[in-house]
Amino acid sequence: MGRVTERRKVIRIRDGAVSTRPDTLVAEEPLEIRLGGKPLAITMRTPGDDFALAAGFLVSEGVLARADELANIVYCAGATGEGGANTYNVVDVRLADGVPVPDINLERNVYTTSSCGMCGKASLEAVRTTARWPLDTSLGTPARLAPATLAALPDRLRAAQRVFDRTGGLHAAALFTTDGELLDVREDVGRHNAVDKIVGRALQQGLLPLSSCVLMVSGRASFELAQKAVMAGIPVLAAVSAPSSLAVDLAQETGLTLVGFLRGSSMNVYAGEHRLALGATAATG
Amino acid sequence: MGRVTERRKVIRIRDGAVSTRPDTLVAEEPLEIRLGGKPLAITMRTPGDDFALAAGFLVSEGVLARADELANIVYCAGATGEGGANTYNVVDVRLADGVPVPDINLERNVYTTSSCGMCGKASLEAVRTTARWPLDTSLGTPARLAPATLAALPDRLRAAQRVFDRTGGLHAAALFTTDGELLDVREDVGRHNAVDKIVGRALQQGLLPLSSCVLMVSGRASFELAQKAVMAGIPVLAAVSAPSSLAVDLAQETGLTLVGFLRGSSMNVYAGEHRLALGATAATG
Repeated sequence: MGRVTERRKVIRIRDGAVSTRPDTLVAEEPLEIRLGGKPLAITMRTPGDDFALAAGFLVSEGVLARADELANIVYCAGATGEGGANTYNVVDVRLADGVPVPDINLERNVYTTSSCGMCGKASLEAVRTTARWPLDTSLGTPARLAPATLAALPDRLRAAQRVFDRTGGLHAAALFTTDGELLDVREDVGRHNAVDKIVGRALQQGLLPLSSCVLMVSGRASFELAQKAVMAGIPVLAAVSAPSSLAVDLAQETGLTLVGFLRGSSMNVYAGEHRLALGATAATG
Repeated sequence: MGRVTERRKVIRIRDGAVSTRPDTLVAEEPLEIRLGGKPLAITMRTPGDDFALAAGFLVSEGVLARADELANIVYCAGATGEGGANTYNVVDVRLADGVPVPDINLERNVYTTSSCGMCGKASLEAVRTTARWPLDTSLGTPARLAPATLAALPDRLRAAQRVFDRTGGLHAAALFTTDGELLDVREDVGRHNAVDKIVGRALQQGLLPLSSCVLMVSGRASFELAQKAVMAGIPVLAAVSAPSSLAVDLAQETGLTLVGFLRGSSMNVYAGEHRLALGATAATG
């Protein structure tokens, strides 16, 4: 349980020279998330922070928004491996009395509505109708998020990625204040899991919505990650790599500030530029 | 339908200078895969090669193994968007007469068995019991896959990635012969989709099992990608980045040759080294 890395033998080939040595790998195990005893989703994740992962997943799905809506989360004792040992790979989430158990029958992290078949527009609409809070607009009146603050985040994320340095195999997500102070960082073999772990911890600590925060991810910005930011009330999502078309559409529709290709002092702003203090430099184009 | 990229406005910030211009993004849309009319899975994918994606997904799940087991694949006419237009985001797969429709009730791409709860060992066992072919061993008797051949693959993959150059937002998978000849390359916003598209096309062309091929992926090697290689009968999986612990375990159990950190003339071999012609250089360590 909870082993973030594992050791395996590796044969290294370097310019024709062959050697054998132990190598450190990122651990990957399935996690089944149950809601009130009913299986809801399975995700391949790096063990650890499993309760936060489950809670954050349910925030993304629109089931949870406040700490008091969550009764408890437990590892299922019946989920036994060889020899009767608990695998610690099945968690059950119980909602507080009175919190409606939604009729969720979805593949992981994909919204659908019946309004227009299966399309991107339906995905956007589902997030809009499920989100519990509008994204905070105070950052934008007047705009006060400095590009220089964003530019400093990748180095801080990298410095905080402890496991990546040993394995090279992890995605990371980090939560920063709008002044660039690191609040939390999580690493996982799956990007969406790293974000769920951050959001779930914030829910458990009673911190949602994360109205004055920036979410930074180590890779690309997909629809799914933009959705998770919106559902947690995070007004700014910054990614090292490219966003997808649907992530940009969601950001534009919800008012999320979406920054991509954040590298050195360069970045691309795809939506929500009203929160950025672009200074006296006029936009040209 | 089938638009691989889309255009959006972007605000570029470069060393304090701000400009606005159009940007090319990778397209992302949901795809629902139905089997005999019954919804089976939803994946966020880059439109295009959708029938191949659906077929390859079903190979990975152990449903399909030969072209003649597949009756046909169609876009569902009832999947209408605004104004009654087909969204081209729902495909229905019909199996040939006599091919058993499995009782699949799984989240996407995650195997479970009841034998040991929910754990990595169960995931490995599910692949082992579902795989239709043993991995070809002829490459290993004697070992005849040259490390120099593998070392040449990343550049060839990169050269064949047309959309990545425009968007920076795509994962790629490529199929090579063991002599390093490029057979197919697919790009997608999701890594697993790129592999499914390659495997699905091979199924449609009657080429499974892909016994004499190398599958190369642009990112990390997760359990899921190793599973897809095994299910398609591909004996060698090479990745630019790190593998996970469970990917290595699966490779060791099935005899898959798993190469990671394939960069320049360097690589790490995690399993199946019997297929590699390591020459006179003895392994030390």
